[in-house]
Amino acid sequence: MIYLDNAATTFLLNSASEELIKYSCTNFFNASAIYGKGLENKKCIDSAKETIANALGATFADNIIFTGSATESNNLAIRGAYRKGFGKMIFSIGEHPSVYNVALELKKHGANVEFVGLQANGEIDYADLENMLDESVSFISIIHVSNETGAINDLKRINELRNKYCPKAIFHSDGVQAFGKVKINVDYFGVDMYTVSGHKAFAPKGIGALYVKKNKVVLTPIIFGGGQEYNLRSGTENVGSIMAFKNAVENFGKIKQNYDYVKTLFDAFVKELEGTDCKINSYHSPYVLSLSFNGVNGETLVHMMETKDILISRGSACSSKKSGNRILESIGLTNEQILGSVRVSFNKFNTMEEVITAGKTLKDCYVELLKKLH
Amino acid sequence: MIYLDNAATTFLLNSASEELIKYSCTNFFNASAIYGKGLENKKCIDSAKETIANALGATFADNIIFTGSATESNNLAIRGAYRKGFGKMIFSIGEHPSVYNVALELKKHGANVEFVGLQANGEIDYADLENMLDESVSFISIIHVSNETGAINDLKRINELRNKYCPKAIFHSDGVQAFGKVKINVDYFGVDMYTVSGHKAFAPKGIGALYVKKNKVVLTPIIFGGGQEYNLRSGTENVGSIMAFKNAVENFGKIKQNYDYVKTLFDAFVKELEGTDCKINSYHSPYVLSLSFNGVNGETLVHMMETKDILISRGSACSSKKSGNRILESIGLTNEQILGSVRVSFNKFNTMEEVITAGKTLKDCYVELLKKLH
Repeated sequence: MIYLDNAATTFLLNSASEELIKYSCTNFFNASAIYGKGLENKKCIDSAKETIANALGATFADNIIFTGSATESNNLAIRGAYRKGFGKMIFSIGEHPSVYNVALELKKHGANVEFVGLQANGEIDYADLENMLDESVSFISIIHVSNETGAINDLKRINELRNKYCPKAIFHSDGVQAFGKVKINVDYFGVDMYTVSGHKAFAPKGIGALYVKKNKVVLTPIIFGGGQEYNLRSGTENVGSIMAFKNAVENFGKIKQNYDYVKTLFDAFVKELEGTDCKINSYHSPYVLSLSFNGVNGETLVHMMETKDILISRGSACSSKKSGNRILESIGLTNEQILGSVRVSFNKFNTMEEVITAGKTLKDCYVELLKKLH
Repeated sequence: MIYLDNAATTFLLNSASEELIKYSCTNFFNASAIYGKGLENKKCIDSAKETIANALGATFADNIIFTGSATESNNLAIRGAYRKGFGKMIFSIGEHPSVYNVALELKKHGANVEFVGLQANGEIDYADLENMLDESVSFISIIHVSNETGAINDLKRINELRNKYCPKAIFHSDGVQAFGKVKINVDYFGVDMYTVSGHKAFAPKGIGALYVKKNKVVLTPIIFGGGQEYNLRSGTENVGSIMAFKNAVENFGKIKQNYDYVKTLFDAFVKELEGTDCKINSYHSPYVLSLSFNGVNGETLVHMMETKDILISRGSACSSKKSGNRILESIGLTNEQILGSVRVSFNKFNTMEEVITAGKTLKDCYVELLKKLH
């Protein structure tokens, strides 16, 4: 099988699975227990925070909060920061549903929510953002790398705009599709909060983290209880998944080198499609390739590819069952282009052979489908 | 090592760990993906719901919502049900922090929250509850089995009171310490929502579930996003942990037989303490034994026991670091008795030999500690 839906989820790395089992079957102790075996696990969790903080370019390990998913991290970042008297809250149209739907929910309850549009290349419209910014802005959340198009937003540039117009506003970014794939430095970017996920980066599902710049942001928890994670996220510490997450991050390897390699995969895949009536909707992160095939239904292509043992997707799994596509629409695609779109997403373990086979097969499927239809 | 802190967390069952790895490393597909491999995982998740529904005596599998922890389940049950115009909300003083602190949080924001007290045996004061109930009650949450004392509340009796005084009120119970240990039948009990946890029952940490009687309770999510779990709990389905949870539940074995066996362990442990100046604070679920040793600090006993490779605890891990103990206080223990308390919690795999050794050792530690102090 050739798996090219890595933006939806990745397999768990073997070395990470060993950690998961070790800290679930043997060193399974409750990290909040007062005895030594509990304290040891607490130290392990702290060391995992350090690993993740380092990978984010963050200075302090205690700026990392473990959660049950990136979705939860995004909810905590936004709803945890929101309070009465908050000014304008700005999100992009290109956010993942776990940010976008939280924004809509807050708006429904009276928050002053505005959305910045996207350019044709998938990035936010920086001029539009600049027009929206003023002293009344309390919160900005802009995705780092789009899960739909791979577009990379310039967080540093957004931070400069924030500092110019609303220095007190909180700046959050959803970095799920960036983590382990593009260079991240939260201090350089100037973000106050940053969301990462385990299962998009060869760690288990059910574990996420939120970087929170401590002296800048005061959060209210969204899950109350035993007071774990500095009282910000209650629930028994998931030491197994945390240690597996740490291991996966330790195995990121060289970000730049992987990026360059995956770029060769991306380019090779695109090359196989030459002469095909399809539009490439992304030219940013090589990990995500969004394509619109003319005159066909992308869903049919996904299913045809599966019969050849190749997995690609329609779009993000989280939005795959809904009609339309807010993000592709906002970068200017027609309804027909959206209907004909598929997403191919790579990982650093994909081989050139796999990718060339998949590219050829996708072209063949498209040609076959066109013939059937006409 | 002899592990007698099973109420804090349990090890992951080997067969469950195999499922965890299978659905993390091999069948790791996103259950919301539209291709066949995704749909297969969705079906697996549905089958896990059926297994858990069966274990709870629930009729429909789609009444089960998977969450990231029992803490999250409790938060979802209470805050998800709460809405403007809600009448009185009744909780017991004996709730786990993931219920108790949610109640306090709602109270802080203006909810009409009242707490029912406990009897000396650890159960709620049913007469007190009856006095509190009237038509204005909208919500009742009473723990099934106490994590501190093992006291078992009579949910059926509480339901009868609810039906008599406030039939429209929602009735939730935290069943974390009951699941897999005592007979559960949500229909017989008459509860509308019931919380269970994976990691107290040989499944992984980071997975919990909430039984929700569909046509009775309308919940608002506390985590928004991609709309998974019938739009009630967004976030990529944690298929590995869910399948491990299913496996652990399939391996519960005979509840009554295990209960009777653990009762022999409980009795044997208590017998070893004969002639010791200690008070037994629990005589209900044999899985939890709360003891108050006279004239010593329970924390010191926990540490002394650990030097002999035996793990017991001070009380619930979630409250172990806080001073005092709301629950032991409310069953009438003096401050000195609370200071001298420890919790010993068994599982069905503990052997009689382990338990007798641990009982003898605890007695020896206590005698040794008394000598040191006097």
